Amino acid sequence: MRVLITGGGGFLGQKLARKLAASGQLRGQPISSLTLMDVVEPAAPNAGFDVACLACDIADDAMVRALFAGHGPFDVIYHLAAVVSGAAEADFDLGMRVNLFGTLHLFEAARAAGNCPVVVYASSIAAHGGEEPEVIVDGVELNPQTSYGSQKVIGELLLNDMSRKGFMDGRGLRLPTVSIRPGKANAAASSFMSSIFRDTMQGEASNCPVGRDFLIFHTAPRTIVENLIIAAELEAEVFGYNRCLNLPGRSDTVAEMVNAMTRVFGPEAEARITWDSDPVIEEIVHGWRNRVISDKALRLGFVQDRSFEDTVHWFLEDDIVGRA
Amino acid sequence: MRVLITGGGGFLGQKLARKLAASGQLRGQPISSLTLMDVVEPAAPNAGFDVACLACDIADDAMVRALFAGHGPFDVIYHLAAVVSGAAEADFDLGMRVNLFGTLHLFEAARAAGNCPVVVYASSIAAHGGEEPEVIVDGVELNPQTSYGSQKVIGELLLNDMSRKGFMDGRGLRLPTVSIRPGKANAAASSFMSSIFRDTMQGEASNCPVGRDFLIFHTAPRTIVENLIIAAELEAEVFGYNRCLNLPGRSDTVAEMVNAMTRVFGPEAEARITWDSDPVIEEIVHGWRNRVISDKALRLGFVQDRSFEDTVHWFLEDDIVGRA
Repeated sequence: MRVLITGGGGFLGQKLARKLAASGQLRGQPISSLTLMDVVEPAAPNAGFDVACLACDIADDAMVRALFAGHGPFDVIYHLAAVVSGAAEADFDLGMRVNLFGTLHLFEAARAAGNCPVVVYASSIAAHGGEEPEVIVDGVELNPQTSYGSQKVIGELLLNDMSRKGFMDGRGLRLPTVSIRPGKANAAASSFMSSIFRDTMQGEASNCPVGRDFLIFHTAPRTIVENLIIAAELEAEVFGYNRCLNLPGRSDTVAEMVNAMTRVFGPEAEARITWDSDPVIEEIVHGWRNRVISDKALRLGFVQDRSFEDTVHWFLEDDIVGRA
Repeated sequence: MRVLITGGGGFLGQKLARKLAASGQLRGQPISSLTLMDVVEPAAPNAGFDVACLACDIADDAMVRALFAGHGPFDVIYHLAAVVSGAAEADFDLGMRVNLFGTLHLFEAARAAGNCPVVVYASSIAAHGGEEPEVIVDGVELNPQTSYGSQKVIGELLLNDMSRKGFMDGRGLRLPTVSIRPGKANAAASSFMSSIFRDTMQGEASNCPVGRDFLIFHTAPRTIVENLIIAAELEAEVFGYNRCLNLPGRSDTVAEMVNAMTRVFGPEAEARITWDSDPVIEEIVHGWRNRVISDKALRLGFVQDRSFEDTVHWFLEDDIVGRA
């Protein structure tokens, strides 16, 4: 079992790599090698199998082909690499290069390998918006309101069609906002949805650019990693015609999430949040949907967060102390 | 008013060109020039304004840029060029080159022109299928079951996002099967939906690869041309968040359409139809949807066929006698 993770240097790629290192197996087979690629060389997890960490620009077709020539073929490919929402909105061409053409390069390399690999693709809740109903159910028209969301949905269409053609065995997950994301603030419009918890619990101030009653559709890093594993392990047939689905998550207001943090952590963190609104962030995140009924995903066995208190506990265990 | 038609050599491009030549105006402005481009140099209509007819491979980015440099900018662009469903299914890479990259090249050239042109994009009923409900209404998830349909939907996403960004003023129409299409049979899986009428009324045999009770969602060439004009003339605001919609059409069985032909034309044509089933064609066309409720399009003023008898009359007037 040979595994590739694109965006392997990101927090999700790193957590997934550590999870695979800990279990040593995927789809009932021992893992023989793990390749992590990112635009900057990712850190390697301690693992009982071969680990290769590579700097590779997914927007560069030749580099992607060289990656497959040198380290492939892969049995399971996790495609997590992306330019995030705020950056893709600020620089349309950058988003197209990485999110659209990068995805095409990866999928074409997977097709050329000829072994019909399992491809787990991170799409996004940003696929939804616009004229869609307020509450998202399976089967509503995808109507992204950002370039990031549009590029993610284009990747879904390619994944579906190339799976139908037998070029790959794709599974696409529309990720809720991941909170509490470890690391530094980034250019994602949703960055504050982690930083107001992560940074304040670590003694820093953090600004919330939306009001306390803003509803966030979110999921914890541990839950996402578990769902990424499940996505690879399911049989292709259970997905049906459409390989892409809305992952489960929780809908909580900022106030409810802050209160949960305070119940677990005490009042010091909350006191470090400032509340200056930011119209640019507000316009982007108000275009997203925050209530999702993920029937198909739950029927297939994907897991759902039970409370934001869990998320705060997991953050303190995994990301402050530094445990995987 | 400068107009470009890609796929200008196709039957729709030619009919649209003749309609524009006859009216001499679009969006309330006199037309000053019309550029027809296709992979083979299209025929020119007789017009009271400048007409340029060019051989240009839309899959070749440099040729598309040269077309804009030499003949642009354009105020209205009709994007009709495509590799049809059967051909895109048989040759995945050809479909990607023309339908995906060709569309990207055109949209990027329109963006680079800097004048935010109106772009009318021919998408397709092939956008629908799979897990969607049997009866299509506005707002159901697009779930194409062919590479052609997938590539058309990717074009819709690009059109929506590039319109939202102000790069162009896009309007996308999901065309029902156009019947009775003049000319020769082609590689479209829907080719028989015209040839069993067109060819038999002109004294030739034609095979119907599906049963008499097969339901076809169809529209006449005259109706499509009228809707293409309407699409360019509407104000952008009426489209809302999503610039793409299901055009109206009629749902009739093959038997009902054949009976309508016989009522208008007499029994000779029907007698020339053979009924040998074709599993390849059947698999493709059974993946399409044939009942569509096009509320949004009708609300915006797009027009709908009243009967297939009208279509037969129009075919005899426009395409046998040769009138535009």
